[in-house]
Amino acid sequence: MHHQFRSDYIELADKRILDALSKYSLEQNIPYGFDYHSENASKYILNTFGSAEGRVYFLEGGTQTNLLFISYCLKHYEGVIAADTGHINVHESAAVEGSGYKILTVPNRNGKIYPEQIKELLEKNNDVHTVKPRMIYISNSTETGTIYSKKEIIDLHEFAKANKLYLFIDGARLGSALTSKENDLEKTDLGKYCDAFYVGGTKNGLLFGEALVVNNQDLQIDFYNHIKNKGAMLAKGYALGIQFEEAFKDNLYFELAAHANEMASLVKAGLTKIGVEIYPSPTNQLFINLPRDIALKLIEVFGLEKWIDNGNMMVVRIVTSFSTTKEDVDDLINYIKELL
Amino acid sequence: MHHQFRSDYIELADKRILDALSKYSLEQNIPYGFDYHSENASKYILNTFGSAEGRVYFLEGGTQTNLLFISYCLKHYEGVIAADTGHINVHESAAVEGSGYKILTVPNRNGKIYPEQIKELLEKNNDVHTVKPRMIYISNSTETGTIYSKKEIIDLHEFAKANKLYLFIDGARLGSALTSKENDLEKTDLGKYCDAFYVGGTKNGLLFGEALVVNNQDLQIDFYNHIKNKGAMLAKGYALGIQFEEAFKDNLYFELAAHANEMASLVKAGLTKIGVEIYPSPTNQLFINLPRDIALKLIEVFGLEKWIDNGNMMVVRIVTSFSTTKEDVDDLINYIKELL
Amino acid sequence: MHHQFRSDYIELADKRILDALSKYSLEQNIPYGFDYHSENASKYILNTFGSAEGRVYFLEGGTQTNLLFISYCLKHYEGVIAADTGHINVHESAAVEGSGYKILTVPNRNGKIYPEQIKELLEKNNDVHTVKPRMIYISNSTETGTIYSKKEIIDLHEFAKANKLYLFIDGARLGSALTSKENDLEKTDLGKYCDAFYVGGTKNGLLFGEALVVNNQDLQIDFYNHIKNKGAMLAKGYALGIQFEEAFKDNLYFELAAHANEMASLVKAGLTKIGVEIYPSPTNQLFINLPRDIALKLIEVFGLEKWIDNGNMMVVRIVTSFSTTKEDVDDLINYIKELL
Amino acid sequence: MHHQFRSDYIELADKRILDALSKYSLEQNIPYGFDYHSENASKYILNTFGSAEGRVYFLEGGTQTNLLFISYCLKHYEGVIAADTGHINVHESAAVEGSGYKILTVPNRNGKIYPEQIKELLEKNNDVHTVKPRMIYISNSTETGTIYSKKEIIDLHEFAKANKLYLFIDGARLGSALTSKENDLEKTDLGKYCDAFYVGGTKNGLLFGEALVVNNQDLQIDFYNHIKNKGAMLAKGYALGIQFEEAFKDNLYFELAAHANEMASLVKAGLTKIGVEIYPSPTNQLFINLPRDIALKLIEVFGLEKWIDNGNMMVVRIVTSFSTTKEDVDDLINYIKELL
Repeated sequence: MHHQFRSDYIELADKRILDALSKYSLEQNIPYGFDYHSENASKYILNTFGSAEGRVYFLEGGTQTNLLFISYCLKHYEGVIAADTGHINVHESAAVEGSGYKILTVPNRNGKIYPEQIKELLEKNNDVHTVKPRMIYISNSTETGTIYSKKEIIDLHEFAKANKLYLFIDGARLGSALTSKENDLEKTDLGKYCDAFYVGGTKNGLLFGEALVVNNQDLQIDFYNHIKNKGAMLAKGYALGIQFEEAFKDNLYFELAAHANEMASLVKAGLTKIGVEIYPSPTNQLFINLPRDIALKLIEVFGLEKWIDNGNMMVVRIVTSFSTTKEDVDDLINYIKELL
Repeated sequence: MHHQFRSDYIELADKRILDALSKYSLEQNIPYGFDYHSENASKYILNTFGSAEGRVYFLEGGTQTNLLFISYCLKHYEGVIAADTGHINVHESAAVEGSGYKILTVPNRNGKIYPEQIKELLEKNNDVHTVKPRMIYISNSTETGTIYSKKEIIDLHEFAKANKLYLFIDGARLGSALTSKENDLEKTDLGKYCDAFYVGGTKNGLLFGEALVVNNQDLQIDFYNHIKNKGAMLAKGYALGIQFEEAFKDNLYFELAAHANEMASLVKAGLTKIGVEIYPSPTNQLFINLPRDIALKLIEVFGLEKWIDNGNMMVVRIVTSFSTTKEDVDDLINYIKELL
Repeated sequence: MHHQFRSDYIELADKRILDALSKYSLEQNIPYGFDYHSENASKYILNTFGSAEGRVYFLEGGTQTNLLFISYCLKHYEGVIAADTGHINVHESAAVEGSGYKILTVPNRNGKIYPEQIKELLEKNNDVHTVKPRMIYISNSTETGTIYSKKEIIDLHEFAKANKLYLFIDGARLGSALTSKENDLEKTDLGKYCDAFYVGGTKNGLLFGEALVVNNQDLQIDFYNHIKNKGAMLAKGYALGIQFEEAFKDNLYFELAAHANEMASLVKAGLTKIGVEIYPSPTNQLFINLPRDIALKLIEVFGLEKWIDNGNMMVVRIVTSFSTTKEDVDDLINYIKELL
Repeated sequence: MHHQFRSDYIELADKRILDALSKYSLEQNIPYGFDYHSENASKYILNTFGSAEGRVYFLEGGTQTNLLFISYCLKHYEGVIAADTGHINVHESAAVEGSGYKILTVPNRNGKIYPEQIKELLEKNNDVHTVKPRMIYISNSTETGTIYSKKEIIDLHEFAKANKLYLFIDGARLGSALTSKENDLEKTDLGKYCDAFYVGGTKNGLLFGEALVVNNQDLQIDFYNHIKNKGAMLAKGYALGIQFEEAFKDNLYFELAAHANEMASLVKAGLTKIGVEIYPSPTNQLFINLPRDIALKLIEVFGLEKWIDNGNMMVVRIVTSFSTTKEDVDDLINYIKELL
């Protein structure tokens, strides 16, 4: 069977992560995330991202993390602004609205949104009959594989501050964004230029888990109660602590992400050589445009996801992961070459 | 350091569970729980519990499972009946009410509730101004370590049917209940005498995870959508499938539970010999009554949980687990002996 | 002071409505809507709209009615489809999302939506990660003053049935729609071609109140409990019953609506004569396009609402009501004439 | 037919209230509660109750008001403390829990609750697994007709402050409490000793409506948005403003309440004379203990509500209202006399 390029969460975990879990198999720990592994992992993470007064909350999955943070910050008459392509808007079964919060969408530009777009939206939603915008949600890397530049993040941050909006960064693929060759955002910018962000483990070689970093101290109050109330507090919280400790104690987290990006670069180079149209993306998600029959074949054989169906042509997504190898890439490229 | 008897979720997992995860480390799987491990595990579980038309949903934790199933079944004007000691009532930070559902409590009798008590409650809540009772929630084993007899379960089941109530069994410690020496409930009774129940992994040697079994087909419709909507769908669902597959492919799940029960029996025997007052419990949770200073010492040294504080006397909880050894038990008994 | 054309809910009520209330001032009635006035009013309404198996629920306001019916019908993973201009989407402070339900918007065509648009949306939202469309919400008359033809309603109804969607008609201005000269919908079509609709009182000369008619018997179960649970059950339900009894015992409801429409026709005729650009609308809401300074003046003097601000030009709304007189219309026309 | 003593909301409204509505029948007003009548009424009310920095929000009903204020103040992991007999706990179809908030009950003492009881409850609910108590809810007069003394209110207020709890007073029958002969609470104490309270109109001769007074300025922020979001903002808000203006511009509100109390006193005197057992209540609700067959007869003839069914004996409730007359009272007494 061919290596599947469906997504970056179809293999359990990097060996070092599973080894760490095995190592502490029978160690007795304080439950609910108050253990020393979680404490260590928190310190590593706060240090890495320069969040001096931040707190880290380990959660199980991305949708859950978005749901928890948004529902914590907003009142039901307040809304969250997102790109129309935003994960919370299209891929979470209305988890945010299901919890009681309206998403106000802005047309994405290469997966990203900008202050002037949000400004327009604020002007339309400004009385007691409309929802009150309260948060900006962005993803980095975005749902279309692009990344925000340092300037873009700072612009959003400043706009948010000026308009009393929170800025929240979905980092399900933060590793891939930060290790991208085109990236100019420093890790410590994350601690500075947003109210909260999360560090995705699930899509970067951990068994499961996301580390939500809340920089804004006002948004830390009783957050543990909130986690428990939403049924999201893992009894064995140290299962998350151990993984993130391992991922951040030295550079494993970024090594895994860099590897996935490198594999994507190889795919891109290979595809370019054989004339396949690729949308701009400097991370581990690639979107390519192919004749319908070829696309369908690749979906079948390599598990690619269909993105846009334009009749004769089809956009499909290729995702590399921590476990993708050069051989896997070669196999994919050769296969496509033969189809063309 | 002494072995801690604080609870049964303070060690990561049994070696066999972690080995299974390591074994499939890099295997590529369909995400979101639609993989073959989850399918295998489902079959084992349905077969074990005799649920011919049931479906299994793997979730991450107990509070989450309670929250998800209750919120799926009820409308906001409907309520769930539980013992005043019920986990959903006292230990889940209002997760059920936080999702919009009232809990109607009934005074527990040794942790259990009975049809005649529920009948009284139905008579009081019977018009448009009161909440409409719609579900009975019980735990087996209960929060005080006791278990329901076969007859008690059947009585509740029949009462529930006659009154159009769902019966839902919280099986966070189902293994311990079913392997108790006093148990007369057959495994296959679970498939017959309730609308749904869950098989707790977290408190029985798995890394994490609960298997919710929904016997009632009407309550299966779109349940996956509901899971996703609540942020509870694990991307790497196969991480749960692999664990439950391992636990149920042969008898591991019940072996681990039987071991914990056996260790509790040893504790009980040892304590009885030295004259400590023990509340009736045939499972892996024991509640003992001790002079305050001794109780406080044991809380400090063995991590016991304080249960009831009666001033001079204190009830504390001892919990054994899959990893407790005879030596651990001896150490505990000897320590208490010296204190008395 | 000039008569204000801001909206149709800025005068308390028609004299006959208030007289009816005064008449029954001290009559003792069964509370919570179970009185004989409410029963009479229900019969009149079901009869008028040909809803053989329907039930009527009297509620206080339009947003409340939308919120109550939508939240009754949907699970949190289900969504409601509406025009982007739909009242629930833009003018209810996220009341629907605030209760936990996503609105899926479709670009309006003259305030209306069509099956082929909804079909497209269903194709995009068809897996466990997306919200599951479950209801179509339309308004008649629409938020832009237009009305649905009989054929358009039947098409939506058939599409909804074929796709297991509920069809719900917001009739906050149903009177105006049905008495419009361009209308070809029969009153009894309302009883046939949707799951539920409501008959707006607030915007048609009643003190307050909307009559929700649920044709679909499956959607009547425990609806009273739902009303109570949402805090929307009026203790003195007969205050609503008396008003709707008066409005429907003979033809008052439609007389009031027809009057408002007639006044709008006069406004239209007058404006056309003096060359003002008017958007198509056969009901009591008119939208006109004017130079900015004139528009601003009219907003100030006649309380018109600003609709779209295009810089040099501005679209403003004129609304007539049961209490608007010919003299009021003449005054408005003359005033505008002088400004031009 | 005999005058019904079922409750104080079974007659529409006092003549003066309806006359005021008729008087302003066609006056054009700013909608949504921003009209001058509402402003006048607010001033009268803030002045009457000595709430210097308070704001008044006019709402439609009592359950709605409780639901709105509680849901505004609390996070879902926080709970509200109430007497077990509290209206929110037993008579609102779980409206509070349905919105996502747990009610923590305390056994009532004559319908009232006390700091030492709440203290106990705080001690039990003090970690991340339990709900976090955040508000004390009391009713004055209570659901059993009793009233809080000035000292009792101040004690609760001080306890609340010391423990960072809000104090909220349900004043559905505040008029009756304040005009009771046993009352020693001053009107201006309401402005001082709680975070919010409401002034019930529905049960005191208004057509409908409750005036929520929020003393605590932190709890006023965006409250209008919250009202709109919950579907509780009346388009014709001035319909409430006009009523409360009339009720408070001179003393009508308290006159109506005093009248109801006086009628209750007459009932009490009459019943005492003929030897009927009456529970202590200084307001317009009386609870009497009667042989079952007599109680059932009175329920049938005078519409009394059954309160407690003790087999041979039955407690029933008698409620007087603004419209009850001396003749009505005599009729009731005579009727009972004959039955005994």
